[in-house]
Amino acid sequence: MTVLAKGAVAEEASRSNTAPVDIQLAERLFDELRRRTGTNRGITRTSYGLGEQIAHDMVRREARKLGLEVKTDPGCNLYMTMKGREEGPAIFIGSHLDSVPMGGNFDGAAGVLMGLCVISGYVRAGILPPRDITVMAIRAEESTWFGASYIGSRAALGRLTSRELDQVKRSSDQISLGNAIDAAGGDTEFLRAGKSYLDPADIAMFIEPHIEQGPVLIEKQIPIGIVTGIRGSFRFREAKCLGTYAHSGATPREYRSDAVRAASALVVELDKAWDVLQAEGADLVITFGQFATDASEAAFSKIAGRLSFSLDIRSQELETLARMQTIVADAVSRIEAGHRVKFELGRLTDSKAAKMDTAIVNAMSDMARKQGIAAETMACGAGHDAAVFADAGVPTGMIFIRNANGSHNPDEQMEIADFAEAARLLSSLCLDPPLKA
Amino acid sequence: MTVLAKGAVAEEASRSNTAPVDIQLAERLFDELRRRTGTNRGITRTSYGLGEQIAHDMVRREARKLGLEVKTDPGCNLYMTMKGREEGPAIFIGSHLDSVPMGGNFDGAAGVLMGLCVISGYVRAGILPPRDITVMAIRAEESTWFGASYIGSRAALGRLTSRELDQVKRSSDQISLGNAIDAAGGDTEFLRAGKSYLDPADIAMFIEPHIEQGPVLIEKQIPIGIVTGIRGSFRFREAKCLGTYAHSGATPREYRSDAVRAASALVVELDKAWDVLQAEGADLVITFGQFATDASEAAFSKIAGRLSFSLDIRSQELETLARMQTIVADAVSRIEAGHRVKFELGRLTDSKAAKMDTAIVNAMSDMARKQGIAAETMACGAGHDAAVFADAGVPTGMIFIRNANGSHNPDEQMEIADFAEAARLLSSLCLDPPLKA
Repeated sequence: MTVLAKGAVAEEASRSNTAPVDIQLAERLFDELRRRTGTNRGITRTSYGLGEQIAHDMVRREARKLGLEVKTDPGCNLYMTMKGREEGPAIFIGSHLDSVPMGGNFDGAAGVLMGLCVISGYVRAGILPPRDITVMAIRAEESTWFGASYIGSRAALGRLTSRELDQVKRSSDQISLGNAIDAAGGDTEFLRAGKSYLDPADIAMFIEPHIEQGPVLIEKQIPIGIVTGIRGSFRFREAKCLGTYAHSGATPREYRSDAVRAASALVVELDKAWDVLQAEGADLVITFGQFATDASEAAFSKIAGRLSFSLDIRSQELETLARMQTIVADAVSRIEAGHRVKFELGRLTDSKAAKMDTAIVNAMSDMARKQGIAAETMACGAGHDAAVFADAGVPTGMIFIRNANGSHNPDEQMEIADFAEAARLLSSLCLDPPLKA
Repeated sequence: MTVLAKGAVAEEASRSNTAPVDIQLAERLFDELRRRTGTNRGITRTSYGLGEQIAHDMVRREARKLGLEVKTDPGCNLYMTMKGREEGPAIFIGSHLDSVPMGGNFDGAAGVLMGLCVISGYVRAGILPPRDITVMAIRAEESTWFGASYIGSRAALGRLTSRELDQVKRSSDQISLGNAIDAAGGDTEFLRAGKSYLDPADIAMFIEPHIEQGPVLIEKQIPIGIVTGIRGSFRFREAKCLGTYAHSGATPREYRSDAVRAASALVVELDKAWDVLQAEGADLVITFGQFATDASEAAFSKIAGRLSFSLDIRSQELETLARMQTIVADAVSRIEAGHRVKFELGRLTDSKAAKMDTAIVNAMSDMARKQGIAAETMACGAGHDAAVFADAGVPTGMIFIRNANGSHNPDEQMEIADFAEAARLLSSLCLDPPLKA
């Protein structure tokens, strides 16, 4: 084996598609995870619960074997650090280890295992990366358990409130978030004080590798996505259109207050707005996921007097979300007048959009091109811990791995070859990171 | 009291708004009906059951008091006849005496009581009408009990099948239609033979007075409607739009198979067609009464993979129904292609449209105008026994009485003054009927 000077190895690795990665480690851990956190159907890694703890214990064991420095924080997040050549802010590779109930094996875990297999690759090849590299195994990302998102990353950045710790209960057993964190070995007193364990200034960049949850890479037959931004959203989860029930045969058009016609008109109006904004290059998705007349009162020979619906609008761009809010409000009042109905949109909830760091996106795109890795820049439609780090001012990036059948279900299907391509890209990035001056 | 020659009385009565009617009789019988067939909520007159039988016994008693000839047929319909001056086909005034469960007091009964109050008016005034007048109290019109419509009138015209008699069961007690008819004193052997008790050639005209079930007369502040035709229909009671469930944030527009967007597009397309046909003067109503994503599978952050709906399209004009069938089929295939979904419209059921007799419509319109009775010609959107008689070739008409709050509910609200106006118009018509040569 030819031994190159460490700097030369790094340079060589980042130029060709030969950045060292330990794919066997990842394969072994995916198998163990599936075996140890699997249920009758899919896998279940409860936030601050058994399955998540098994996963944390596993990666801690591997980190020790690799000789990494291992720490936990008051929110029970796990930090596994390989020292680099230089002083200065570290490169973070982070993702979560919890899952939805009866979920898939890859959502979340793929990011943590990819971090370890990049580090293991360096250790085996005897490479010292330029900066410290910390793999962060994050707690409680899935909102299904506590009805709140990004609990672990928010804990690490001092963004959990006492109110949340006390009032938010786990759906599976009604244990409060605070008690669950304490039971897992955390320090809720620290969290209640609003103190931040991490200082964003100490983090050179935060990279979250994750399976794609949509079908874009599958449809385009491209193994890797480079995320340009995480879509923010605004949502009406419990909206209603109220008309008047009336005889379908005996009520002429001009006397109808038909909730189905009015709500359908809203769907089509927003669809037209989507057409226009898409043509202008805006990033946007609009979804009426639930849309239903009343099961007990509606009948085939009755004009519908009520239709309940949900509306979920997402975009990477704050401006697009703001425009859509105006478009929804305008459409609603126009349709109310034209159809003699009333809309009750209910409470609006929203989540912030997060731009990924341009230097990171460009660096990854360049490296992929140079190494002959097919990669597509794209928006990320679902929320991720990366959004919390981006919002804290950390230069942030995400790598998507092609995945069939969506996520949050047992049929997630990521090919290990695609995972390996993404890991090689990440390995290259960590050896030649676009550090801020 | 000046006594006029009988012919002169008739002529005078038909020219002014003084056609004799016995409104007190109707008021008394409405009260008795409400008292004797009322329940905790609304009234219930089960087809071939207790409440209907009470109503039949009441009107039979009144007919005897008025000296009418009383008969029943094998389907237990009741015929109460006042002899006229001339030989020849009789004038029938008919409606039903059953009701939906917890229904209103006026739907159906108003027509029978109006017939009796017209005849009682003649008896009291000593008027002999030109032709025999038969008030027909029809059985089992409401489809809610046996899941079949117009049972009584179809029985009278030899249009019930052995299959129906045996297989159709009453929703309240699972008794077969045949057994229910026999228990009420009918003759199902006669019915099974397919024999017709009535000969359409013996009926000069069939007039059905009925409360309006829609809001047209209330909205227009007009007491009486003269029906031009009964809308026929075609219906898809269990249609589906099938798309693909997918992540609302992570699935771009071009990869969506969104059942809500596709089905809403269908609603809006048919609404546009309705615009066009209405502008051309077509009679049409289009109703998506049930329209719902799957309660267990749909979620606010999921693109909907399934939406179930009902579609009810009605018109007086066969041609309009045929055009709408083509329009629906075209819209469905266009939307399937554009939205990457599949529609399964399911079984189509239909009911025939029935034109009312033009001579009767014109005669009533003329009489109303001459007598200063405000009346509106209009379509009838719900099915009625009148459609069966029209289909049998009997010249048929319907008079609507203004009614608030729709029908088939305890809040039906007909004013007796409006009933009286309609009765006077009917009385005039029976004294000067537009008989075929």
